[in-house]
Amino acid sequence: MSNKIGNKITVSIFGQSHSEAIGCVIEGLPAGFRPNMDRILNDIDRRRGGKNRYSTTRKETDIPEIISGMVGGYTCGAPLCAIFANADTKSNDYANLRDIPRPGHADYTAHVRTEGYNDIRGGGEYSGRLTLPLTFAGSFVKQILEEKGIYIGAHIASVGIISDVLYDPVNLTREDLIPRPFPTLDEMTGEAMEEYMTLIANEGDSIGGIIECAAIGLPAGLGSPMFEGIESEVAKIIFGIPAIKGIEFGAGFAVSSMKGSGNNDPFEYKNGKVITSTNNCGGILGGITNGMPLIFRCAVKPTPSIALEQNSISLSGGVRAKLKITGRHDPCIVPRAVPVVEAALAIAIINQL
Amino acid sequence: MSNKIGNKITVSIFGQSHSEAIGCVIEGLPAGFRPNMDRILNDIDRRRGGKNRYSTTRKETDIPEIISGMVGGYTCGAPLCAIFANADTKSNDYANLRDIPRPGHADYTAHVRTEGYNDIRGGGEYSGRLTLPLTFAGSFVKQILEEKGIYIGAHIASVGIISDVLYDPVNLTREDLIPRPFPTLDEMTGEAMEEYMTLIANEGDSIGGIIECAAIGLPAGLGSPMFEGIESEVAKIIFGIPAIKGIEFGAGFAVSSMKGSGNNDPFEYKNGKVITSTNNCGGILGGITNGMPLIFRCAVKPTPSIALEQNSISLSGGVRAKLKITGRHDPCIVPRAVPVVEAALAIAIINQL
Amino acid sequence: MSNKIGNKITVSIFGQSHSEAIGCVIEGLPAGFRPNMDRILNDIDRRRGGKNRYSTTRKETDIPEIISGMVGGYTCGAPLCAIFANADTKSNDYANLRDIPRPGHADYTAHVRTEGYNDIRGGGEYSGRLTLPLTFAGSFVKQILEEKGIYIGAHIASVGIISDVLYDPVNLTREDLIPRPFPTLDEMTGEAMEEYMTLIANEGDSIGGIIECAAIGLPAGLGSPMFEGIESEVAKIIFGIPAIKGIEFGAGFAVSSMKGSGNNDPFEYKNGKVITSTNNCGGILGGITNGMPLIFRCAVKPTPSIALEQNSISLSGGVRAKLKITGRHDPCIVPRAVPVVEAALAIAIINQL
Amino acid sequence: MSNKIGNKITVSIFGQSHSEAIGCVIEGLPAGFRPNMDRILNDIDRRRGGKNRYSTTRKETDIPEIISGMVGGYTCGAPLCAIFANADTKSNDYANLRDIPRPGHADYTAHVRTEGYNDIRGGGEYSGRLTLPLTFAGSFVKQILEEKGIYIGAHIASVGIISDVLYDPVNLTREDLIPRPFPTLDEMTGEAMEEYMTLIANEGDSIGGIIECAAIGLPAGLGSPMFEGIESEVAKIIFGIPAIKGIEFGAGFAVSSMKGSGNNDPFEYKNGKVITSTNNCGGILGGITNGMPLIFRCAVKPTPSIALEQNSISLSGGVRAKLKITGRHDPCIVPRAVPVVEAALAIAIINQL
Repeated sequence: MSNKIGNKITVSIFGQSHSEAIGCVIEGLPAGFRPNMDRILNDIDRRRGGKNRYSTTRKETDIPEIISGMVGGYTCGAPLCAIFANADTKSNDYANLRDIPRPGHADYTAHVRTEGYNDIRGGGEYSGRLTLPLTFAGSFVKQILEEKGIYIGAHIASVGIISDVLYDPVNLTREDLIPRPFPTLDEMTGEAMEEYMTLIANEGDSIGGIIECAAIGLPAGLGSPMFEGIESEVAKIIFGIPAIKGIEFGAGFAVSSMKGSGNNDPFEYKNGKVITSTNNCGGILGGITNGMPLIFRCAVKPTPSIALEQNSISLSGGVRAKLKITGRHDPCIVPRAVPVVEAALAIAIINQL
Repeated sequence: MSNKIGNKITVSIFGQSHSEAIGCVIEGLPAGFRPNMDRILNDIDRRRGGKNRYSTTRKETDIPEIISGMVGGYTCGAPLCAIFANADTKSNDYANLRDIPRPGHADYTAHVRTEGYNDIRGGGEYSGRLTLPLTFAGSFVKQILEEKGIYIGAHIASVGIISDVLYDPVNLTREDLIPRPFPTLDEMTGEAMEEYMTLIANEGDSIGGIIECAAIGLPAGLGSPMFEGIESEVAKIIFGIPAIKGIEFGAGFAVSSMKGSGNNDPFEYKNGKVITSTNNCGGILGGITNGMPLIFRCAVKPTPSIALEQNSISLSGGVRAKLKITGRHDPCIVPRAVPVVEAALAIAIINQL
Repeated sequence: MSNKIGNKITVSIFGQSHSEAIGCVIEGLPAGFRPNMDRILNDIDRRRGGKNRYSTTRKETDIPEIISGMVGGYTCGAPLCAIFANADTKSNDYANLRDIPRPGHADYTAHVRTEGYNDIRGGGEYSGRLTLPLTFAGSFVKQILEEKGIYIGAHIASVGIISDVLYDPVNLTREDLIPRPFPTLDEMTGEAMEEYMTLIANEGDSIGGIIECAAIGLPAGLGSPMFEGIESEVAKIIFGIPAIKGIEFGAGFAVSSMKGSGNNDPFEYKNGKVITSTNNCGGILGGITNGMPLIFRCAVKPTPSIALEQNSISLSGGVRAKLKITGRHDPCIVPRAVPVVEAALAIAIINQL
Repeated sequence: MSNKIGNKITVSIFGQSHSEAIGCVIEGLPAGFRPNMDRILNDIDRRRGGKNRYSTTRKETDIPEIISGMVGGYTCGAPLCAIFANADTKSNDYANLRDIPRPGHADYTAHVRTEGYNDIRGGGEYSGRLTLPLTFAGSFVKQILEEKGIYIGAHIASVGIISDVLYDPVNLTREDLIPRPFPTLDEMTGEAMEEYMTLIANEGDSIGGIIECAAIGLPAGLGSPMFEGIESEVAKIIFGIPAIKGIEFGAGFAVSSMKGSGNNDPFEYKNGKVITSTNNCGGILGGITNGMPLIFRCAVKPTPSIALEQNSISLSGGVRAKLKITGRHDPCIVPRAVPVVEAALAIAIINQL
């Protein structure tokens, strides 16, 4: 049951990078909801490759075909299944990977898990392409959340050593969360990141980064203590995105060197509403929302597929082997992962309402 | 369903800080297992307060009463229920907290969630005391894992600005994982931490920290891609521990400034076994174990209960209010959380076998 | 995860017939609910043995000890744990059953499942005694349902060849559902059943029966198509009661010889409300309530423990063996199962709201 | 989460009668399994309409398109998604049903549940057509079970007043379970049923029936006590099939008039193996298999769509209305439901292994 998330509105994802199609089944959507398809296509476009010099040259239309769950533009209460054709596949690029596992990829672990029957083409079910139906589902859900006054956004906090400004954790506004052409809050930082990624690409290498994501408009009182608290539920789905290696809420790892007197967020009233004057807790106390912006950051590892030659092994020969990966790969997946992280948060949140 | 974790061997936790008792139900344990109770009591003792100057003065015997699931010292295949009496409760300490929520605590969010019916005494179900049955369950499970050659340990990576050495991510041994009287790898660092915590306590304040936890002996191939990958499952349970605000696996947030050529862990053979020569992935690729040590770190916030006066509000009056917390509280819960983190990892892992 | 039921309000049951105690954990109860404990004790009393000549002579007080989840008589939003001491146990009655499995009991199947480590005393976790915490939980939940205008009741439809009248499936009233001293709608039929059960007991034998159960006041629209329809959810929990071997909704098995023109329930309006003029569907169409009384019947097998000598085997010897069961047993568990069936339905329904 | 079943090998079903396609996602299949597609197509053919005079004239090819989860004829460990196009749809047949709900159908309950947004065309997600992907999934799973020596079969026990012989509950063989052209054990009874169904069709009416289903080769010890016992798990999925209104295991409802001395199945040894000399328990004791044939029967209601005029209501007008259903409908769905019931049992069983 690894590809399903949620307990009220569930999203099940299927497909491999080079199977006939990939897709998702969304169950539990309210009947009578009419999504704005243009906005969904826009989120898909934000996630899509092929647009500029630092992302993969794989060409896919990425248009969802909705084969169930909607009638006349409205949800009908039945599970919604959307599929995306895999058209531009070059499976022979991957022939030798069954023997020589790529470092940093799931080739070896998938091989062990399936006793060699895994679909090696394009990374199979471990491919970042599987985040496409996740983005679709999350974008759909974001619109439902917006009807309830809940808004979600994300931006690149850093790529390599280049850092964007961070969200204002107390006074975050809907304006701050609007998608930008390049997803940084500071435009010039974004340009620097783009140049940096080009340099990295020219080296035949790749680079990691951090994404910051937030939701505003959440009512206080969502979530539960212990194992289904907000942090648990968000972390579970965020780590479902390939390449994420860390997550922190609010002040995050910085709490480790803070004192209680500095970390505790004092309560106060503002316009008759309970707020906190700081937001080190990231909007979550005891696993439950407190009505302040929910904020987290997650670490994205550098794309494991790089052009540089790497050391690996030959599984058939039991010996060391050199590996040179050809094919199409992003030097940095952080920009494309931004709408995916938003989508994941949206799915986590709607299951708390 | 917030207090239950796992899908093969499940642990359900119940109780409030000052209810008659707290406890857990463990379902799915193999029949015919005979645990070493002394070792479980030892883990409980590691978690227990009252032992030294920097931990709460609450006195509890913390002896589990096993009321089902065992016959003659062996598990019998029925759900195991263990309860712990709450004897040393001073409920009147908490009388005014229903009106003036403590910053950094769940008082306010629990109040909203239950419309004021939450058990405010001692933090109710949000109390760190609920980690006692979790420790019991995890300690039980650790013994089952050891029969399969899997060993778990944790230590304090830092308290405030004082840092311990970290685990060797490639050559971690069973010896490294053995519990120490004070849970640091470097003994002198531990002494410095103890002194530092005393200073913090004397200030009437508290301090956060980081715990590093690892498992060795895991076979390659455990876990799954996407939402039930190892990182997702471990993060879900770790964030179930009160006060955890971040988690990172392997190189963690450091991957954000690493290049692919440096982050990718090259495969090689050692004594006929596939290993990696570095372990930036923390033993997990594509959500699946690769046979290397599983390593993560988690951030623990400073104890929110501090002796210093704090700003808060009066919920009844709708006005600002000052809060002075009396009662018994740890200046730093990091040392006591070490066996809890181990327990959580144990429960996560056994559900992957 | 066999002893847990529900997904919104879950009930987890633990304990064995002769363990220190049995009990349940109820999660998801609304905070601020104040149950009438006398009514719960009354349902427990209806289920309890020791009252008359046809039920077991085991004496237990069956008073629940609520060790968490309530403060000052109100639920507090935390999991409610209730335990029942097992005081009057005579474990030596069961010594030889580990070798000679009782026909009709779970002795053999439990032995295989646990490789001989099952708790054989009093039937262990397979004992009908485990329906005590189920009755407690269901009785609690029934009160919550009544606040929403939903009422549940059950009666004995038959014991052996003696049949009670059945519920009026269209005009069932709250009055019809009120518990009776002996649970038949027709008092004289009840007396005949009691005499019949005494005769069976004197033969050293036991007898089966059928229980009919209903709920009124359900709004139309509860449930879902396919695998979590009302029939699926009710059947799953009803078969969790030991000794149930069949369940049918509405006309049930009789539909097999009905024509569509006779089985279809015509819609009509009554006082502006949509009703059906017959109720062969038992209040459920497409897995969803239609607002009519929900009605089902379930078959209860004769108590497998009988005084008559039976044929069995010796597991140690690998040979045939005679078995003579001593100890305390009901000749007919149908009367005691009536509140248990009600409890099960209550738990199934509240998870649909 | 209503359209998903299973916890180890899960089947999620999506689609409506007249959506672009219907299908299923099967998760948890072992990697490296190569199914015999001809056998799957044969089960689909058994379920399919259009073959003879008593079944619907809707023409569909019902060929599954497998869009993920397989590579080169083998499962690859990723979720398998199969879709079936809905080609021969005549949606205008159903135009007036949104206002006048069909008795015995889910039109009204679905209308209430979705506030009128349900897909009314062809019964939407409540259509029997949804059993097509269930049959596909179950047929796939049956082959995996056969590799483990477990065989499943079903036959018509009765249609209206015409009854087939029943399975021998003790000495059931693999031969008995082989599919027949018309699914009765006695060929002449089958011919009588076919004639009877023709008569019913000519009346413009429909008729119900009973299906008996069995599995042999099950090891003893599968299942669990209480809510996830074999009966619970099988009943949950069987009631997921539209039109099922009752289920009974072994002697079933007949236990209600049996004595313990007659109902208890005596244990004995046969060729060194533990068996029972009767099988009133249907192969299940305490929710756990005992190694004897698992046998149950389920009641199928008459097709609610009949040609005869029926009484209903106009939802818009709030008045009585007459309804005359045109379109394509089976006078008896029992024969077509036989492979569906087998499929459901297969899915239930594989989740117990």
